[in-house]
Amino acid sequence: KMLGRVLCAVLFVGALQSLAEASQGHISVVLLGATGDLAKKYLWQGLFQLYMDQVSSGHSFTFHGAALTALEPGQRLMFDVLKKLSCPPDEAPNRCAVLKDQFLKLSQYHELSSAENYTALNREIEALLRQEGLKEAGRIFYFSVPPFAYTEIARHINSSCRPPPGAWLRVVLEKPFGHDLESAQQLAAELMGFFREEEMYRVDHYLGKQAVAHILPFRDQNRQFLDPIWNRHHVERVEIVLKETVDAKGRTSFYEQYGVIRDVLQNHLTEALMFLIMELPANVSRAEEVLQHKLQSFQSLWGLEKNSAVLGQYQAYTSQVQEELQQAQDYVSTTPTFAGVLIRSDSLRWEGVPFLLTSGKALDERVGYARVLFKNRAYCTQSETLRDAGHSQCKAKQIIFYFGHGALNTPAVLVSRNLFRPVMPKDSWKEAVAQSDLHVFGQPLSDYYVYSPVKERDAYSVLISNIYHGRKDFFITTENLLASWGFWTPLLDSISRQPLRLYPGGVENQHLLDFEMVSGGLAFTLAEPAEMLNPTRQMPSDYKAIQSKYRQSPLVSAWSEDLISQLASDMEEAAVRSVARSGQFHLALSGGSSPVILFQRLARHHYAFPWKHTHIWLVDERCVPLTDSESNFFSLHSHLLQSVRVPYFNIHPMPVHLNRRLCVEEDRGTELYAKDIMALVANASFDLVLLGVGTDGHTASLFPRSESGLEGAPTVVLTESPVKPHQRMSLSLPLINKARQVFVLVLGKGKHDITTLLSRVGHEPRKWPISGVSPSSGQLVWYVDYEALLG
Amino acid sequence: KMLGRVLCAVLFVGALQSLAEASQGHISVVLLGATGDLAKKYLWQGLFQLYMDQVSSGHSFTFHGAALTALEPGQRLMFDVLKKLSCPPDEAPNRCAVLKDQFLKLSQYHELSSAENYTALNREIEALLRQEGLKEAGRIFYFSVPPFAYTEIARHINSSCRPPPGAWLRVVLEKPFGHDLESAQQLAAELMGFFREEEMYRVDHYLGKQAVAHILPFRDQNRQFLDPIWNRHHVERVEIVLKETVDAKGRTSFYEQYGVIRDVLQNHLTEALMFLIMELPANVSRAEEVLQHKLQSFQSLWGLEKNSAVLGQYQAYTSQVQEELQQAQDYVSTTPTFAGVLIRSDSLRWEGVPFLLTSGKALDERVGYARVLFKNRAYCTQSETLRDAGHSQCKAKQIIFYFGHGALNTPAVLVSRNLFRPVMPKDSWKEAVAQSDLHVFGQPLSDYYVYSPVKERDAYSVLISNIYHGRKDFFITTENLLASWGFWTPLLDSISRQPLRLYPGGVENQHLLDFEMVSGGLAFTLAEPAEMLNPTRQMPSDYKAIQSKYRQSPLVSAWSEDLISQLASDMEEAAVRSVARSGQFHLALSGGSSPVILFQRLARHHYAFPWKHTHIWLVDERCVPLTDSESNFFSLHSHLLQSVRVPYFNIHPMPVHLNRRLCVEEDRGTELYAKDIMALVANASFDLVLLGVGTDGHTASLFPRSESGLEGAPTVVLTESPVKPHQRMSLSLPLINKARQVFVLVLGKGKHDITTLLSRVGHEPRKWPISGVSPSSGQLVWYVDYEALLG
Repeated sequence: KMLGRVLCAVLFVGALQSLAEASQGHISVVLLGATGDLAKKYLWQGLFQLYMDQVSSGHSFTFHGAALTALEPGQRLMFDVLKKLSCPPDEAPNRCAVLKDQFLKLSQYHELSSAENYTALNREIEALLRQEGLKEAGRIFYFSVPPFAYTEIARHINSSCRPPPGAWLRVVLEKPFGHDLESAQQLAAELMGFFREEEMYRVDHYLGKQAVAHILPFRDQNRQFLDPIWNRHHVERVEIVLKETVDAKGRTSFYEQYGVIRDVLQNHLTEALMFLIMELPANVSRAEEVLQHKLQSFQSLWGLEKNSAVLGQYQAYTSQVQEELQQAQDYVSTTPTFAGVLIRSDSLRWEGVPFLLTSGKALDERVGYARVLFKNRAYCTQSETLRDAGHSQCKAKQIIFYFGHGALNTPAVLVSRNLFRPVMPKDSWKEAVAQSDLHVFGQPLSDYYVYSPVKERDAYSVLISNIYHGRKDFFITTENLLASWGFWTPLLDSISRQPLRLYPGGVENQHLLDFEMVSGGLAFTLAEPAEMLNPTRQMPSDYKAIQSKYRQSPLVSAWSEDLISQLASDMEEAAVRSVARSGQFHLALSGGSSPVILFQRLARHHYAFPWKHTHIWLVDERCVPLTDSESNFFSLHSHLLQSVRVPYFNIHPMPVHLNRRLCVEEDRGTELYAKDIMALVANASFDLVLLGVGTDGHTASLFPRSESGLEGAPTVVLTESPVKPHQRMSLSLPLINKARQVFVLVLGKGKHDITTLLSRVGHEPRKWPISGVSPSSGQLVWYVDYEALLG
Repeated sequence: KMLGRVLCAVLFVGALQSLAEASQGHISVVLLGATGDLAKKYLWQGLFQLYMDQVSSGHSFTFHGAALTALEPGQRLMFDVLKKLSCPPDEAPNRCAVLKDQFLKLSQYHELSSAENYTALNREIEALLRQEGLKEAGRIFYFSVPPFAYTEIARHINSSCRPPPGAWLRVVLEKPFGHDLESAQQLAAELMGFFREEEMYRVDHYLGKQAVAHILPFRDQNRQFLDPIWNRHHVERVEIVLKETVDAKGRTSFYEQYGVIRDVLQNHLTEALMFLIMELPANVSRAEEVLQHKLQSFQSLWGLEKNSAVLGQYQAYTSQVQEELQQAQDYVSTTPTFAGVLIRSDSLRWEGVPFLLTSGKALDERVGYARVLFKNRAYCTQSETLRDAGHSQCKAKQIIFYFGHGALNTPAVLVSRNLFRPVMPKDSWKEAVAQSDLHVFGQPLSDYYVYSPVKERDAYSVLISNIYHGRKDFFITTENLLASWGFWTPLLDSISRQPLRLYPGGVENQHLLDFEMVSGGLAFTLAEPAEMLNPTRQMPSDYKAIQSKYRQSPLVSAWSEDLISQLASDMEEAAVRSVARSGQFHLALSGGSSPVILFQRLARHHYAFPWKHTHIWLVDERCVPLTDSESNFFSLHSHLLQSVRVPYFNIHPMPVHLNRRLCVEEDRGTELYAKDIMALVANASFDLVLLGVGTDGHTASLFPRSESGLEGAPTVVLTESPVKPHQRMSLSLPLINKARQVFVLVLGKGKHDITTLLSRVGHEPRKWPISGVSPSSGQLVWYVDYEALLG
């Protein structure tokens, strides 16, 4: 055993010496999991490519494979892999053979299982460098190991294997990086205990795919053409697609925990989307700027809702899981193997443009692409039959970053000829000769300028080169990772309640997985006769909104999402009716968290709402500046007003902030508001007042035993809340009771007790202010969700 | 001569008698211009059709042809026409022959040239009715005469030919109804002196075309399908097209005065558009509701700008005009024979949807249609080659009202099969058998449900029937007419300054007339090498914005449109820079008319403007409520704020209206505003102040010899204007001079004198307040248009 080690060290030093003189510093690459699948398939080849590319760079290298296997069997396993390394077609065979020989000599296997192993590795590296008189440039640790091993390895590297000051450390991490925001945060926090942010290189191998990696350079090099059209005025939609023909067979132990969204959408497709939609930095090669702009793009995305996705599962999946994971015959998997997701941004540039992300297993073809389809902005006066087919502006205009496979079977960049001839770097992309009979994306290939890479490179070899060059923009920073998980987690959380459409797989799927954008979300086009896979838990949408009575008034009840959607529709109807009657709609809205979902729904789904004729009033307000995030008005503004077009004059925040101070009696804000109401609202009778209920039975900002507002004149009052911020302004009960309609919204288990109690008590506003809501000549309707109603 | 008259009267009464008993009342139809082209071609045939349709309705009829020609030759001319009346194919030949004979007997010629003629006509009608013991139901006067004759005829009818009380009068008028808003108003006013609104039936024969007339019924009968999709979320564009192959030869004396916009777009295409985009009334057969909704649609349209249209003229046109109108060889016509116009609405339903109206002579085909193209909202997961061609949701979805001619050569309604199967009235529309080899609107005809009329009817016969039925919604009311001219006149006014593209005509046009939507307007797609026809007057766009000095500060000068566009760009640049620097942009804007165009330009063309981070302040305000149309803020709101997304908190109208009263000193509005500025604007230094100049040299609301605001502290002041409303609030000069940048905008000939004067005087703010604008550490730039600068 000792002999083998010595022999190996001799070979090793022999190869190194030849380069020692030219060295600008030495780089040690340690590949953890050196005998694993990924290493065999891509990583060693990538390291060999790095060596070939950089052998004359002035840096010297050693390559250290490591695994848990003992030295001798590990060595054997590893060198079996290394011997099979191939020479790329563009490399001279002689040079490659020589370099491969050197590469093998520079490579060494280490058993890394105990703390001592790590110390020994470090000692060996140091000894070698000392012995050869080499300055250390840096160390790369490539983690090709399962995530549960990360923390342990990271601890050892941090404590035993850090290079001396002046040399860098780069640790390369492979996904998965958690399975939701919380776990990703936890993993990130652990790693941050061992490594600095700049030391970590999280791999998303899509960023190494040539067509993906070229998105930003393409946008940069073609600014002159793209600047005027890369926006919502010109772009019709963006599609990012990864279709696979394979299924999850043999991998269900991984897949069953992750599913298609975690496996593909959260990382690969999201990253490609970001490259497409981020604001272009002045300098696209400055990683810092790129990352910052990417983060800003995440912030501009709308939150995903239940209806943002359509989900499917190929029919054989559950039985594969039963078999591979030894599950019972009645086990039903709810893991999606197909997803289409609609993403939207509210940036000025992209507002209204749909971004469609799609991926699935067991589909009809293997293909991946990011496609930007432009709007047809032309009118062709000449009749169709007479149009010049080649360049007519009435033909589709698109730009496609083709990741690979599919009809083209190569990475490519396609630009419609009626758009522009793109600027492409000649050293890396060449114009392809069109196969005239090929039709892609609705047009013959000859309608496009088509470029493919001069040298097709594997994603891992691209990434390994970028690790060497310290190009952090090819990797996922912690902030980037958490932004992405923060974006996807709410959807993932609601997936367990989303039905899955079962599909047979392959061409048999036909139109079963076609989907459409409908009312702000997605839905499968074919509603029937597709078989749906319902999770065992009863679905909210299985219930219709039920109508009954509560406290002698109409009650509408449903699961919360359906309830909110019913309430929003009823509000729209009330608004339309009121505007038809009087030309105006005076709407008084409450603060709190329940209405937020309502506001969002109104903003995104009710474009027929007569906002232009609607006056917005506040039911109550906290005594904080309007721009304070605690302000009811601020919340109303963020979730509703900034998205709809209510005229400025029709917006009536409560004057809690006068003379630059808050709710001071002598500033007479309450009087001011009451006067405004009297002046604008006929008979001070609001068309609709929306209320909530607190667990203590308060409503508006009228709390139990309040000294003002529970009786007396219909007016506006200052009140005290038992919780902070204490000072409040509120409509009084008598003013509320003058309304034509009052809707009370009650959501969540937390409201079950008060809901039950209120169903039994009479009119006792001093104890439970909500019980005093009883419009004198108007209508009261309760909107209570099942959780509040049934507990 | 007398004999002929008697003979005729005998025949006449003979035919009438057969119906006298059944009569529910008698209707006299008087066709003025009975021997003219329109009468020969359509009107008599339409009247005969009316007779055939209504002979059993219980009404009795007489038909009175009239012209300036003397009785005998007039009679001959008219009966020559009547003898040639044809029987429609769906009418039994025997019945038709009998009815034609009766129709001829009921028809009579009258010379109507003098006042006496009219009195005589009236006497004859009365005598006849008395003689036959008939109750009079009403009289129809059809004006098929040139417009210059209208007033005279109208006067005579009003004074001599009105039916007795209880019977109605309907006068039918043929276009042109004026050639711009003013002339249309004048003509309307004259007619209103003689007829009540409900008595006038203005014909736009397009409203009688079967496919046009069916737009509203179609929308009504298919509400269930259309309600969810008839809006900006689903409609991609609307095209309304009338292409002709003929040119204007032989008609240039008319055409040279009107051109394609007045001839086709202002009336026919606009009316079709209105039917498509108006809010659907609850009852589409109630004329009142239809007309009211149509008027509302006009109000929602954006004003047309110079760049809303592309215009062309076929090459032979000018020589045709020279020849037919005896013009000199150097005469150059600037009348467009081709126009494409982009219309937009800011209604919630249609905001952002382009409406493209196109018409021209000497084009490659004769065809007319209104086409609604829907957005593709689907993603088809299956690869293209595997898609079911018939019903895939990824195919285009459209609804087309096909007026006639073209490939189909019949009126038709087409609905894409992947949309829905439309509800069509079986008695009037039948499903057509698709000619499978025909391709229309990008798809094989078999992709559509195709319906054509059971009985093809000429537009005039449809309209004459609707006159009889009193269906005023098939005609153009005065309000409707003026709304349309009000909409089109600004574009017509600017057309003389618009270059015309010359086109050879027919298929030779190739792509020369293809156009595109670019930056809010239209432009021909091929910029070169088309020959442009420039009117003799020099074009504003021939000048580049020139830069120089004025009052020692930078001067930007150009024709006003180019100047405004330059100013808007400079403002955007300042805003972007400021937001990059400080995260905010504090912009103070002036009132007045000049900035309105600027506001509109900013709202429509500068979507990259960082509105979210912009604070809007007022430079000055009139002491009127903010909702008063005189308010500067109101104008700013209508033209800019309602179209962009400035957060509510960042909008700072001047507090001229406090405690429900205006600019009362003790309400301390000026202090309040000054305090807000101090609190929010760093160092009270606005990032940009936009000013104007009055002819008296005032700026902001600082007038010559003002007691406050010209010197002293940087503050907000109340001032007095020499013109109403007198009371004003204004930033003071010292406050303005703290700004980082001040732009002064001066537009129009009316400002030439003050511009000249100011170029000579020094710093004399008490005489000319604008001369006191001199930012202490900021930059001042003058934007003065050529008219102000050069007179």
